[in-house]
Amino acid sequence: MEPVVEGLRAVLPPDRVLTDPDLLEHHRRDKADLCDAGVPLVVVRPKDTAEVAAVVKVAAAHGVPVVPQGARTGLAGAANAVDGAVVVSLAGMDRIVEVDPAERIAVVQPGVVNAELRRAAAKEGLAYPPDPGSWESSTIGGNVATNAGGMCCVKYGVTGEYVLGLEVVLADGEVLRCGRRTAKGVAGYDLTALFVGSEGTLGIITEITLRLRPAAAESRTLVAVYPAVAAAGAAVAALTAAGHAPSMVELLDRTHLRAIEAYRPMGLDTGAGAMLLVATDTGDRAGDELDAIAECCRPGASELYVASDAVEAEALTAARRLAHPAMEHLATARHPDGRGGLVVDDIAVPRSRVVDLVVGVEEIAARHDVLVGVVGHAGDGNLHPVIVVDRADPSSVERGRAVFDEIVRLGLSLGGTCTGEHGVGTLKRDWLAHELGPVGLRVHRAVKAALDPAGILNPGKVITPGPGLDGATAVAAPADGTSGDAPRSAVVESRVRA
Amino acid sequence: MEPVVEGLRAVLPPDRVLTDPDLLEHHRRDKADLCDAGVPLVVVRPKDTAEVAAVVKVAAAHGVPVVPQGARTGLAGAANAVDGAVVVSLAGMDRIVEVDPAERIAVVQPGVVNAELRRAAAKEGLAYPPDPGSWESSTIGGNVATNAGGMCCVKYGVTGEYVLGLEVVLADGEVLRCGRRTAKGVAGYDLTALFVGSEGTLGIITEITLRLRPAAAESRTLVAVYPAVAAAGAAVAALTAAGHAPSMVELLDRTHLRAIEAYRPMGLDTGAGAMLLVATDTGDRAGDELDAIAECCRPGASELYVASDAVEAEALTAARRLAHPAMEHLATARHPDGRGGLVVDDIAVPRSRVVDLVVGVEEIAARHDVLVGVVGHAGDGNLHPVIVVDRADPSSVERGRAVFDEIVRLGLSLGGTCTGEHGVGTLKRDWLAHELGPVGLRVHRAVKAALDPAGILNPGKVITPGPGLDGATAVAAPADGTSGDAPRSAVVESRVRA
Repeated sequence: MEPVVEGLRAVLPPDRVLTDPDLLEHHRRDKADLCDAGVPLVVVRPKDTAEVAAVVKVAAAHGVPVVPQGARTGLAGAANAVDGAVVVSLAGMDRIVEVDPAERIAVVQPGVVNAELRRAAAKEGLAYPPDPGSWESSTIGGNVATNAGGMCCVKYGVTGEYVLGLEVVLADGEVLRCGRRTAKGVAGYDLTALFVGSEGTLGIITEITLRLRPAAAESRTLVAVYPAVAAAGAAVAALTAAGHAPSMVELLDRTHLRAIEAYRPMGLDTGAGAMLLVATDTGDRAGDELDAIAECCRPGASELYVASDAVEAEALTAARRLAHPAMEHLATARHPDGRGGLVVDDIAVPRSRVVDLVVGVEEIAARHDVLVGVVGHAGDGNLHPVIVVDRADPSSVERGRAVFDEIVRLGLSLGGTCTGEHGVGTLKRDWLAHELGPVGLRVHRAVKAALDPAGILNPGKVITPGPGLDGATAVAAPADGTSGDAPRSAVVESRVRA
Repeated sequence: MEPVVEGLRAVLPPDRVLTDPDLLEHHRRDKADLCDAGVPLVVVRPKDTAEVAAVVKVAAAHGVPVVPQGARTGLAGAANAVDGAVVVSLAGMDRIVEVDPAERIAVVQPGVVNAELRRAAAKEGLAYPPDPGSWESSTIGGNVATNAGGMCCVKYGVTGEYVLGLEVVLADGEVLRCGRRTAKGVAGYDLTALFVGSEGTLGIITEITLRLRPAAAESRTLVAVYPAVAAAGAAVAALTAAGHAPSMVELLDRTHLRAIEAYRPMGLDTGAGAMLLVATDTGDRAGDELDAIAECCRPGASELYVASDAVEAEALTAARRLAHPAMEHLATARHPDGRGGLVVDDIAVPRSRVVDLVVGVEEIAARHDVLVGVVGHAGDGNLHPVIVVDRADPSSVERGRAVFDEIVRLGLSLGGTCTGEHGVGTLKRDWLAHELGPVGLRVHRAVKAALDPAGILNPGKVITPGPGLDGATAVAAPADGTSGDAPRSAVVESRVRA
């Protein structure tokens, strides 16, 4: 038995220190298609913070990398195993410690599923807004580690805006508590924000104190269909300029409309260029607001329909929720036998550049003869170009990769960022280095080296090792030399799944 | 001439490298009464980022500390000079670079006064919510460096929630750009949040990209007077539990009501135990909301009055704005000839513990025979106990200091934090160490050492030097051994001002 496994069995019950090859295979990767993943040495399932700390101490003593995992629903490979790692599955730490309606906070373990917390908050008349697409299966720990977004962000912001405090196991196994339980507080450096979105590279989150909101009033929803995406973009600009605060502003392009209609016929206009879904959530008082938003959306629309009730609103939103399965279905239909793959991109641009991004993506896709659909959160400029590839065809994967890189480059050239809500993982690591620039990358490395001097926490995610501020390198640079000078996606050819 | 001054004159025009003793005296301290301050060697007034970078490079080369200053309106001594330092006054970098209504962002230099930005935003139909009491004179750079709060925070949060991106001169004079211009983005570690509130100890902020909001609708305001503070606390709890979103919930205790009435007679009930001021800012649509809030405030109130218009609302709010000058007037009246001093504390507790804090402060004040008034932002649990001392009487200062420390201890014991919005500076440095605990302090020191290995940036503020995560100390621990083991305020006896 490997010494580190022996060490882990000394601190955890044997049935939670797992080396079964099928299980190791199962824990290799998250939902990021075509991202590289290693094979872990062992998967551990701690039940509490003390066990996580003990696991990290053992791994640190043996110099073995540690990869934390939640529900592995991420889309950037941040939870992918590296060879020989100890995978720490936090899914079993799934206790809602408390929901305090007087203080409007919740304290949860990292393995609590987003939807479970939403239900617990709702029972107290409260809401936890962040709603990543994976909300029915993803964990709060994973949401925090990736600073996950969702459809609500246009009004309510990303996960990090709800994180008041954290308990974190550090690289040496010590337990840090940072942040607060109070509504307000500015004491010391904002370590809480530093750990949010750090994707397990600075510490392992073992408890989260979250801000809740009063439950929103009933939603009202409208759908608007446009012959071309430019008119949809103009509508978004108009409703933003008018100062409205919609709780959802989603855009689906023609590729998505066709994919959804093929997957679940619901009478969508497959000849349209784009569809917008817009909602308000301030109930009766907001009636005027949705009507005013409708007027912003009307110019250029071939169809505009305001849902008469919540049931109809939910039916309209269903099309949006089917976007990802519909594109998976399309990929499978085009490339059967498990050969169809999707690379989901995640670009945020200034709100006024949404149309430029969508039009640019169309041009890039046509030039490379690759099918790309665009869906996403138009209200805050965060769009997901979804690239369809044949994973068994190296030329198709290579063209998909070229398209992906061109799209990120376009996004940055529009003043955007390489990730709006999915995070960096391995997929965007070199693009992040490019976006940060040399000084930003050095500061990232300095922070990483300060908190994880031996480089054992989720190595190779977010940034590659390299010189920090003082020129010192905490751990050796990788042999492939991916140090940010030639940004590329980490899209790799993969074997066809069985 | 000192070599560092010579070096500075080589990179800045001589008229912006100042060593006049009166001017050095003027730049010694911020508005934190009774906090220690050194005498700087030189004050420089850079005009742009390149000049700040050049100044820091010169200081770094000579190993001389650098203390950034804005308008020096801080209340924790964060901007106080240390002996022999280069004070970098950023007040002259006061350009509003842009206000972009389509993207709802502003880009400003650090010396822009808060009120100037508010006016520039208002011209575009937008609002910059953070409203520290010093908003008419304090700078955005200082607001960001201290993560300043204000009355709006109960609805709109502190300064940090509006900071999208920063340009920062690092300890080695390199220029970092972090964050983004997009509404959404999660790329890499949140360095922006790390610099917000770091009080110049990690870098010098030279440009700030801020999120703006659509301008709020008209405010409606009510005032409620209570025989005792407990009933006021119950009102706050009731309106919070009902899920209302007031834009202001301010509390004034009896000491403040009397001080204000003595300073500017306006018919306040000086026999009352407490007064609440509550506002909504959603205009006509929120009419129902203020009426509903009024019902939450009515039980136990001896008087409840809803302002009929904006002029009346402003008149009600004026009492709150006079709180600080009124207490200064009171201190002067009790201890004439410049002997009266105020120590302004800043505790945030869980919302449900506001009454416990106020009652506890009364008990502490009575026991030490010290006059303490409490004012503040009851809606988010952030209160300011204001301690009146005779600065020329060592026994009075010592009792004031004991009261201050007991209040912070009480706040922490109620689940609170040692600073809700004023920051740490030197005043709360040892209390922060206590609040963080040994692991939190080690992480703070590790981050400080990573970004400022030589310890030249605003040394002695926020944290004292000491062992970081790896046991190494970046710079020598101070002789006074203030390393967090025996928390005390940094309240010191001071000479009577001329």
